[in-house]
Amino acid sequence: MASFGPIEIRRNSPQYGYITDTPKKGWSNTDVVGKLQQALNIPVFWTTDVNGSAYGEYVLSTLFNQRLDSLVYYTIGTGVGAGAVVDGKFIGTMGHPEMGHIRLKRHPDDLDFKGICPFHGDCLEGLVAGPTFDARLGKSGRVVPLTDHVWDIMAYYVAQAALNTTLMMRPDKIIFGGGVTSEEFLKKVRREFAKLMNGYVDCEPLEDYITMPLAKNNSSATIGNFALALKNLES
Amino acid sequence: MASFGPIEIRRNSPQYGYITDTPKKGWSNTDVVGKLQQALNIPVFWTTDVNGSAYGEYVLSTLFNQRLDSLVYYTIGTGVGAGAVVDGKFIGTMGHPEMGHIRLKRHPDDLDFKGICPFHGDCLEGLVAGPTFDARLGKSGRVVPLTDHVWDIMAYYVAQAALNTTLMMRPDKIIFGGGVTSEEFLKKVRREFAKLMNGYVDCEPLEDYITMPLAKNNSSATIGNFALALKNLES
Repeated sequence: MASFGPIEIRRNSPQYGYITDTPKKGWSNTDVVGKLQQALNIPVFWTTDVNGSAYGEYVLSTLFNQRLDSLVYYTIGTGVGAGAVVDGKFIGTMGHPEMGHIRLKRHPDDLDFKGICPFHGDCLEGLVAGPTFDARLGKSGRVVPLTDHVWDIMAYYVAQAALNTTLMMRPDKIIFGGGVTSEEFLKKVRREFAKLMNGYVDCEPLEDYITMPLAKNNSSATIGNFALALKNLES
Repeated sequence: MASFGPIEIRRNSPQYGYITDTPKKGWSNTDVVGKLQQALNIPVFWTTDVNGSAYGEYVLSTLFNQRLDSLVYYTIGTGVGAGAVVDGKFIGTMGHPEMGHIRLKRHPDDLDFKGICPFHGDCLEGLVAGPTFDARLGKSGRVVPLTDHVWDIMAYYVAQAALNTTLMMRPDKIIFGGGVTSEEFLKKVRREFAKLMNGYVDCEPLEDYITMPLAKNNSSATIGNFALALKNLES
């Protein structure tokens, strides 16, 4: 079960298996794992949606003959989230990561935009989630061509997410999925990343380091979930 | 051997055991591990200085009856570096972290300061390392009282380092050592951290989460190094 968050994943917590506080109506304080196990009487593996995607890409990498020890998977859609796998395990002992809410250096042409995150205003999610197009331009991102300067601003922030992730965790690969991402957009991201990094840490070739998911049509999590269920059964 | 970086720690690299490119004179491309092993004919464990400190605090936590699964150790001195231990292992499969060079949101009263990092200008190190006092005020940080507004600006950036580390890795604890840090300064950092986090992720009590090192007089690395040597011998 790869659930939207925030969720309680610490097994020693009395709230293990719960969706905790969420703005989604009717879901706060819901015992998902308990209800599932009671109804179906089967073991349940419990993690975040983005961890499921990250694990799917981790499993797929072996099928594509890439040997990865670690990776980080970001999704940029209505919100921004990320999961990280290191040596087959998820990062986070106090809970799951919430990388969508890191703070970043503001783009000089974007200083007046306050961001749309209800908790933080201009965190990563508040600056690059899909609805920021509506907030900045009054129209959906789908109709904004990649030649529009707003995409340069987006690339500047997403490149910083990749940069900070690199400097903090040194993963083998950073993957960007979700509705806002495209290969053309990632080309801009790689250019900004190279400028920001300025040769300090070697991540070349960037085409292999900052990538779209291997799984097509947003299916990384589906693969990851089956793999995690299997792993859970066998452990 | 807990060395200043950048160093090569990947065992499958032909440069394993080297200090790689460094601005420190005479040290670039030096085979430290090879020379030590040739001269002394003993096994050598090789990591970064801050990883040594992080490991020392990880070991000490058990002596102080804290059960930690993970921690991050930042040093703020002439430069800024950090090491991370998760389940007894260091983070970083492509190499060691370089958390001192993440980008952050600039403080509104500090927008004109360009930062002092030769690679990035206003990365974390470029904004809060010891020599930034000389660059901003023309005098050493030692003579600047904590009531000076520059310390609020410093706290804003260091709190963001703690915030981004929390959201990316969810460690059990974040430790700040080095000449710039003090318990009084960390009180400011915790206040800024709480404002920036805005209740999104629970890290309370902050007095236990954002802390000075358990080891006094900058000795975390000494303890960590002996522990790593022992672990290396026994593995």
